[in-house]
Amino acid sequence: MLRIALAQVNSTVGDLDGNSAAIVEWTGRAAAAGAGLVVFPEMMLTGYPVEDLALRASFVEASIRTLRATAAELAERGLGSVAVVTGYLDRQAGLAPRVGLPAGAPRDGAAVLHGGAVAVTSAKHHLPNYGVFDEYRYFVPGDVLPVLRIAAPSGEPADVAVAICEDLWQEGGPVTVAGAARASLLVVPNASPYERGKGDARLALCRRRAAEAGAPLAYVNLIGGQDELVFDGGSMIVSAGGELLARGPQFAEALIVADVPAGRAGPEPPGDYPADARDGTTMTIRRIELPGNAAADGAAPAAPQLAPPLEDLAEVYAALVTGTRDYVRKNGFRSVILALSGGIDSALTATIASDAIGPDRVHVVLMPSDYSSEHSVTDATDLVRRQGVRARTVPIAPIVKAFDSELHLTGLAQENLQARIRGMILMSISNAEGHLVLTTGNKSELATGYSTLYGDSAGGYAPIKDVPKTLVWRLARWRNEQAARNGAEPPIPENSIAKPPSAELRPGQLDTDSLPDYAVLDALLDDYVEKDMGSAALLAAGHDPALVERVIALVDRAEYKRRQYPPGPKISAKNFGRDRRLPITSRWREPLGGQPGS
Amino acid sequence: MLRIALAQVNSTVGDLDGNSAAIVEWTGRAAAAGAGLVVFPEMMLTGYPVEDLALRASFVEASIRTLRATAAELAERGLGSVAVVTGYLDRQAGLAPRVGLPAGAPRDGAAVLHGGAVAVTSAKHHLPNYGVFDEYRYFVPGDVLPVLRIAAPSGEPADVAVAICEDLWQEGGPVTVAGAARASLLVVPNASPYERGKGDARLALCRRRAAEAGAPLAYVNLIGGQDELVFDGGSMIVSAGGELLARGPQFAEALIVADVPAGRAGPEPPGDYPADARDGTTMTIRRIELPGNAAADGAAPAAPQLAPPLEDLAEVYAALVTGTRDYVRKNGFRSVILALSGGIDSALTATIASDAIGPDRVHVVLMPSDYSSEHSVTDATDLVRRQGVRARTVPIAPIVKAFDSELHLTGLAQENLQARIRGMILMSISNAEGHLVLTTGNKSELATGYSTLYGDSAGGYAPIKDVPKTLVWRLARWRNEQAARNGAEPPIPENSIAKPPSAELRPGQLDTDSLPDYAVLDALLDDYVEKDMGSAALLAAGHDPALVERVIALVDRAEYKRRQYPPGPKISAKNFGRDRRLPITSRWREPLGGQPGS
Repeated sequence: MLRIALAQVNSTVGDLDGNSAAIVEWTGRAAAAGAGLVVFPEMMLTGYPVEDLALRASFVEASIRTLRATAAELAERGLGSVAVVTGYLDRQAGLAPRVGLPAGAPRDGAAVLHGGAVAVTSAKHHLPNYGVFDEYRYFVPGDVLPVLRIAAPSGEPADVAVAICEDLWQEGGPVTVAGAARASLLVVPNASPYERGKGDARLALCRRRAAEAGAPLAYVNLIGGQDELVFDGGSMIVSAGGELLARGPQFAEALIVADVPAGRAGPEPPGDYPADARDGTTMTIRRIELPGNAAADGAAPAAPQLAPPLEDLAEVYAALVTGTRDYVRKNGFRSVILALSGGIDSALTATIASDAIGPDRVHVVLMPSDYSSEHSVTDATDLVRRQGVRARTVPIAPIVKAFDSELHLTGLAQENLQARIRGMILMSISNAEGHLVLTTGNKSELATGYSTLYGDSAGGYAPIKDVPKTLVWRLARWRNEQAARNGAEPPIPENSIAKPPSAELRPGQLDTDSLPDYAVLDALLDDYVEKDMGSAALLAAGHDPALVERVIALVDRAEYKRRQYPPGPKISAKNFGRDRRLPITSRWREPLGGQPGS
Repeated sequence: MLRIALAQVNSTVGDLDGNSAAIVEWTGRAAAAGAGLVVFPEMMLTGYPVEDLALRASFVEASIRTLRATAAELAERGLGSVAVVTGYLDRQAGLAPRVGLPAGAPRDGAAVLHGGAVAVTSAKHHLPNYGVFDEYRYFVPGDVLPVLRIAAPSGEPADVAVAICEDLWQEGGPVTVAGAARASLLVVPNASPYERGKGDARLALCRRRAAEAGAPLAYVNLIGGQDELVFDGGSMIVSAGGELLARGPQFAEALIVADVPAGRAGPEPPGDYPADARDGTTMTIRRIELPGNAAADGAAPAAPQLAPPLEDLAEVYAALVTGTRDYVRKNGFRSVILALSGGIDSALTATIASDAIGPDRVHVVLMPSDYSSEHSVTDATDLVRRQGVRARTVPIAPIVKAFDSELHLTGLAQENLQARIRGMILMSISNAEGHLVLTTGNKSELATGYSTLYGDSAGGYAPIKDVPKTLVWRLARWRNEQAARNGAEPPIPENSIAKPPSAELRPGQLDTDSLPDYAVLDALLDDYVEKDMGSAALLAAGHDPALVERVIALVDRAEYKRRQYPPGPKISAKNFGRDRRLPITSRWREPLGGQPGS
């Protein structure tokens, strides 16, 4: 048996020293638990994704230098006998780079640290370049599969192979080669962003790849937020037969310790062995021995954690809280500010913020106008009382009047003006007091352009940007029910959930004056935006033709607004941001009742 | 001899019908000039770049359908005997797509239209995935080199090979195969975005590739603006020996007609021939015959155009005008509005706008405050008189006062407030009257974050976003001198150029209170931003250590502002936008006097 620890931690992009310290700290915990092998996530040392920092020579050099310093530091702390697998940013000196890559081609690397030194390195073989990923821009693929022979305290030694993230998702490559190498364990550092339902897909994938490799598979994922991505953890170990042996929590740092069978080692001595990767490439199996490895001997068997997965709404809510908390913290803010209108979007956003950083660090501003309803103030005040956030009121009527006397605005311009005055008030208080401004718009609004540029869309982070309106309501109800289950007061006023949504920018205005019922709208947006269906497919799916035409036009025309929107946590299969990249200037309109060019 | 026409035209993303009509129209002109072959730019039919529209099945289908309809339309107009080479969006049915690509893998295609049908298709072999390009996200590479045998009116037939854009920039592939196929002419549709000095690089490249192919090379580039990209044309024909035979103008539509030698045809009959592409792949030479081709017989030799390249400042200015004009036009605006402060940035932006769409469609707003200097109004008024733009004045003091009475702001918050009130006034007038708001910030400001979010950074398009401050002054002087050379009144008041720059947000404020001298700053920004140099390299280049530390911190911290900035025309090797992609959340700071992790 080999005792292994999966270090599911939260690294920060660019914080090499902090991330290095985390490796040392968590290796210490793993050693204390008797583990002979500890595995960290992909790009642990640099954070993920580093984007164009991967192309900067000084950053790549610092990553490699810090990796070596980390190995030395581990040995100084008496941890040199633990085998540490960690992701980092590497480069392949001497390789003629792909066109566009700098000399010294960057790689998405994995290193084994042992005995105060870097024992072996490899790099991700399959590079994802779709959805939120742009890895062909940054990396050259790896072609080495390291296999570490680790002497187990008793019995046969373990042969541990290392693959990285996308290497699981594509066919052939490291998993196939690990099978050919008769590895007794496949460990896989990951930086796999959250989206709804992905946990099930990952478990099924790990089961399939463990079977292909003929060995247990240890999947280690990052947790935490990085701009619009949230990493959800959910690290796990699956046996060669597909049994789930251990699983970590979601959205929390954790050390998952388990004993996995050793043995099955091939007879080969240390050295390089060519292998057919079954994906059109040849890889090299690099066998090394790690003598004097210090797995716990005779220790009581580890009782591995088997955290149940969160249910759908709990998982989404945790993603929003994690993304918000980490954007605040990692960007050096201590507090947030947002507009509280009495409506459901700002109520949910305030609740997420309170759960993320505590209500005493959440500042809300009530900004009633002449068109604000009675309940807009009472519902907002009710939320303030329930949560204990810090509230102030700034009436906007005098400012509206000052603009009016200069500009004499009417109609939409007048409506937008009110939203922009509110945005400006938030920005002004932010400038004066240092709070991060949270934007309260939801995905349905962002899709249809039902928002005011520099008004309600102003801010630095948008917690519910990827949440359709119907899901906003479901999350609000879920959060209240969760409070009730725990015997706490529900944080969101029932009236904010129940009342018909309104921007309150003119007397008696309702969202349904401008938009269809949200249940109908969200179903259509899901097909058009997330599934990228064309008009013929939308009609075939049963959507109303007039509505399809109207909503497509709204979505297409709002691209310029989305480009200037702040980032927010991705929870869907296709968010507005890194996932969906469309030109602003485009005359393409999905054909309805007639084909262009025919 | 074969008479060839290069159709250097301005296509619009998504406007399949309009782009198809342009192909028919320009083919008519080419036929009238006696050409037997006309070549259009890359992705002519769809515009370029289409971004994620390439992944939408309905759009790919429409492109292919419109291509066929265009071939039929050409024949109906009596143009079926002209060989038409055009770029379009294709797909490779039946190909197992790369992970992340939809079924029916998209291709960056070229088609030959002849006799009312699509005679042959191919696709770009080398896919760029660096700088502003993301083609691994969208396309599978082509592996066919079409060679068209075109019967010349007298003498030997021509054998015309087709490559696409990046196929010139990388080694091996279509150029090598065209040489092996003994093509008598290599034609290359391009969509190559402008950047300073690129014309010289393209000419040198074409000469080298013509020599490698052993044949004349016809390079056809798009013109026009598309979001942040500007295509500059400059199409050309280079002989096998490197002589420049023809060159089109920059930033203007043009038909370049020339006679090129035929002959050198190999003995091979129509059919497929495998060829070593010398880049690790095998390509197929696809020889087809186009009988009944109607090149002019006995016509007087074409006297090909040899447009001289624009000098540096003229070229940059033309790029800014072209980008601005096309953003306005292609997005359906008829007019623009901007804030005129009396300073150089807004003066140059107004001048670009006047040159782009005419001064009667340029609206300017003077928004003096209590801190505005006397000359801010007189200089702005002087510009209005010189150019005849439409001006109005909206004093901001009463609005500042209304905010002040609610918020009691001081310091930076108060300064930002003034900028935001101005931004809001522009947006309000835009909402009421329908003008596109132009943002007047320059690249030095954008780099250092010396701008107010939702204030002076508000707007839909930013004409001088990629222009460093020192270049702003040079362009202003150049434009005035150009006017003087033409006997016209210089459009920009001398005082706007000569006076020290100030944001005028507090009494006596100067840019140099917050920023170093712009000549020093721009040199440092060029090394840090465009050349991506780390701190050690910056110090080695002789920059002041304290300034390096300060400016790097400013640039790194301003990433969140840049993300919400509108697009503007790219003129540099690395613009803020598609070219430079950095995380907002990042703790990386270039090390100064000490190495992290060591």
